[in-house]
Amino acid sequence: MDITKPTLLLDEKKCKKNIEKMISRANQFNCSLRPHFKTHQSIVVANWFRELGITQCAVSSLEMAKYFFNAGWTDITVAFPLNILEHTSVNDLAGKIKLNLCVESLETVKVLNDFLEHPVGVFLKIDAGYHRTGLDAENFAEIEAILKALESNHLITIKGFLQHAGHTYQAKGKQEIDEIHAYTSKQMINLKEHFNQQYPDLMISNGDTPTCSVSDDFEHLDEMRPGNFVFYDIMQAEIGSCQYEDVAVAMTCPVVAKHADRNEVIVYGGAVHFSKDRIEKDGKNIYGLIADKKENGWGNPIAGWFVKKLSQEHGTIHVPDEAFDQIKIGDLLYILPIHSCLTANLMSKYYTLDGHEIEMFRYPS
Amino acid sequence: MDITKPTLLLDEKKCKKNIEKMISRANQFNCSLRPHFKTHQSIVVANWFRELGITQCAVSSLEMAKYFFNAGWTDITVAFPLNILEHTSVNDLAGKIKLNLCVESLETVKVLNDFLEHPVGVFLKIDAGYHRTGLDAENFAEIEAILKALESNHLITIKGFLQHAGHTYQAKGKQEIDEIHAYTSKQMINLKEHFNQQYPDLMISNGDTPTCSVSDDFEHLDEMRPGNFVFYDIMQAEIGSCQYEDVAVAMTCPVVAKHADRNEVIVYGGAVHFSKDRIEKDGKNIYGLIADKKENGWGNPIAGWFVKKLSQEHGTIHVPDEAFDQIKIGDLLYILPIHSCLTANLMSKYYTLDGHEIEMFRYPS
Repeated sequence: MDITKPTLLLDEKKCKKNIEKMISRANQFNCSLRPHFKTHQSIVVANWFRELGITQCAVSSLEMAKYFFNAGWTDITVAFPLNILEHTSVNDLAGKIKLNLCVESLETVKVLNDFLEHPVGVFLKIDAGYHRTGLDAENFAEIEAILKALESNHLITIKGFLQHAGHTYQAKGKQEIDEIHAYTSKQMINLKEHFNQQYPDLMISNGDTPTCSVSDDFEHLDEMRPGNFVFYDIMQAEIGSCQYEDVAVAMTCPVVAKHADRNEVIVYGGAVHFSKDRIEKDGKNIYGLIADKKENGWGNPIAGWFVKKLSQEHGTIHVPDEAFDQIKIGDLLYILPIHSCLTANLMSKYYTLDGHEIEMFRYPS
Repeated sequence: MDITKPTLLLDEKKCKKNIEKMISRANQFNCSLRPHFKTHQSIVVANWFRELGITQCAVSSLEMAKYFFNAGWTDITVAFPLNILEHTSVNDLAGKIKLNLCVESLETVKVLNDFLEHPVGVFLKIDAGYHRTGLDAENFAEIEAILKALESNHLITIKGFLQHAGHTYQAKGKQEIDEIHAYTSKQMINLKEHFNQQYPDLMISNGDTPTCSVSDDFEHLDEMRPGNFVFYDIMQAEIGSCQYEDVAVAMTCPVVAKHADRNEVIVYGGAVHFSKDRIEKDGKNIYGLIADKKENGWGNPIAGWFVKKLSQEHGTIHVPDEAFDQIKIGDLLYILPIHSCLTANLMSKYYTLDGHEIEMFRYPS
């Protein structure tokens, strides 16, 4: 494979191992796995799940749902608060597949009840304590009002409670992840118990990659919806959701300039390839790490090398003294992304290590 | 126009006014204008330049050069350090158009000399003091060695010195921009004078939007290459390159949730639409500002409203108390982007206020 410009590579073996491991964890906990497909956004990778028996998925937009429906996925949760303006797309998909929606207000449910023409499942989005979206898990009155409004519509099956503990992305290590998981699980279990008599079939669906990757207590949860684990990335490795050797994507970037006076190498590869997510480590902003090149793929990050700045197409790489002279203009560096979801979304296609192009959803379509 | 999801709108009048103003400034200073097309990335907007007499442009990749070549642009500078791995694309384009390249090392020039098959123009990229890329403007020995190596190739026309004063993006107000401009201009004038006897025809090409928008002293410069000015954005308005009323793009985003307890509204519109660039203002990270809706388009930012967080598809908007209750789920908010180049790049298409779809380059192609 002749790489001449920033190219996102996928290590198929690592990716399939990540998928297998998550399926095995879900089985171990007797939890249904509904992988979120917003990270890989590809029917090819989706098929790797299907080959292992997964037939349901989550997505983050109705457009993405359509893309996967066109590839034969017929049981899809749109894990994003229902956008009532897209009622035509909702009805269109609901008429063809098992579509699950998320709501978090009576205002939305009233509109949904007005326009809905086909059966859908509906989850109540619960705030896991991350305070981005969702109903307060202790606001039983509001939750009950929404449940009643949903119940009044014969086209609606109330699926249960759904949350995304996005604050695990701020955690460090299994213990902190477990603490968040314990807190959010308790919230959901309380909720389920509170409404159990009136609504005995409600499920609990949890979503974040850190929890689903390392926590152990899923006894009372019914569904896992992690997405990022399929590729992982630097952020997840730093949180402790995975090892660096599990990171299944790397961007190859050509070296275009060297600045010995400041130990910097410039690569063709910038914000339009990686996105601008970053982590802070040892007081430094880090926009990516450079992995060791291997015979077929890449190894662990090289100590002391990091992406220190990204502009639109330029990446500025810090390289320690002792390594600087080995780098030549035209070399390809393998760079692990901070946030693989945003990186894959930007690149819109990737290649396996043996050079097969992997088609992706092009967003916005 | 029926907007149901995050949609990037272009105010054609504002955009054309920005173009006209920059052309008039270039004329006033007797400077050639070679607009950078990486912001709009569209043959439609490119045509608006052409209608006003502009026939040359700059781009940031060879792929983008091909896109504009296919739309009839035949005088293109790739304002990015030459990526020697793309020699096939260089030769392909050089055989068809007036192609200018940028180099900043002897290592690159040696490879260029080896593979080049058709005439090209070459600029020496000079570090404007931003310390991203470019040769040290006082390193006459290295610059001379590169000039000599370029001179030895009869296919190469040495065009001159090119710089991008990216540090004006950290400036506040005309005075700070002018100070940087004075410093970088002096560097370039010194360089030109130093080599004037041997190379009497070298040009000076300068690039950043702040300088080109507000500075006055372009007497000794030959070419301007600003790009962002075509749309402007919050960053440029805060720097002082433009007024908020000049910002020609806004993202319309549907409201999907409201959280009265924390004065937050959630819109469908996140990092995959805006990118994650931000500014810090009054101790807050700001990822976008909400503009006043007008009969046809939008007005200035509404005081107290701002995008406080972006995740993949969610935007979290802070809304002051007094306005909160007016907002309804399903409303469309008009959000000005922090960095219009990255936003447009993500969206891959935009619409004029009367609903015409504007085609863009899809990167990576």
